Amino acid sequence: MYKVKVYITLKPGVLDPQGNAVQQSLQALNYAEVQDVRIGKYMELKVNTTSEAEVKQRVTEMCEKLLANTVIEDYRFEWAADETMTSAMEGSE
Amino acid sequence: MYKVKVYITLKPGVLDPQGNAVQQSLQALNYAEVQDVRIGKYMELKVNTTSEAEVKQRVTEMCEKLLANTVIEDYRFEWAADETMTSAMEGSE
Repeated sequence: MYKVKVYITLKPGVLDPQGNAVQQSLQALNYAEVQDVRIGKYMELKVNTTSEAEVKQRVTEMCEKLLANTVIEDYRFEWAADETMTSAMEGSE
Repeated sequence: MYKVKVYITLKPGVLDPQGNAVQQSLQALNYAEVQDVRIGKYMELKVNTTSEAEVKQRVTEMCEKLLANTVIEDYRFEWAADETMTSAMEGSE
């Protein structure tokens, strides 16, 4: 059993209206020092496999097929057998 | 200038219908090894301050006031002066 943490972020250059809205809300609350906000997704998966190679291959597939929209988003993920994250993998076009 | 990475996750025990939907979609795509999916938010902030103590205090405030719903969500964040994440902070009720 592996615990996988997936991070999905907008590619640089892709507009982030949600991030802009959060930034404006922060400014309205007097957090003027916040100069940029980009919002992404964070997922935790529990994956029942036996090998790290399988985790890496299968989660890459899941990201490409369902979890990320690879036209506008990048993904990266980390996995660990127990609670400690041991390895990482980045995916980007 | 600090780059801050904020992770917002549902507290344990809070239902995650979006995560369940993703899990079911993964199962429909024959990824039966995925046993649990929890979905959270990931934000990258650029904060224009001079001290680490200020980053820690101000971003904690931002999380409490706007970024996280602390009734159902936990937050944690990491910050770095350059590109390397150096420090981390966890917030949870």
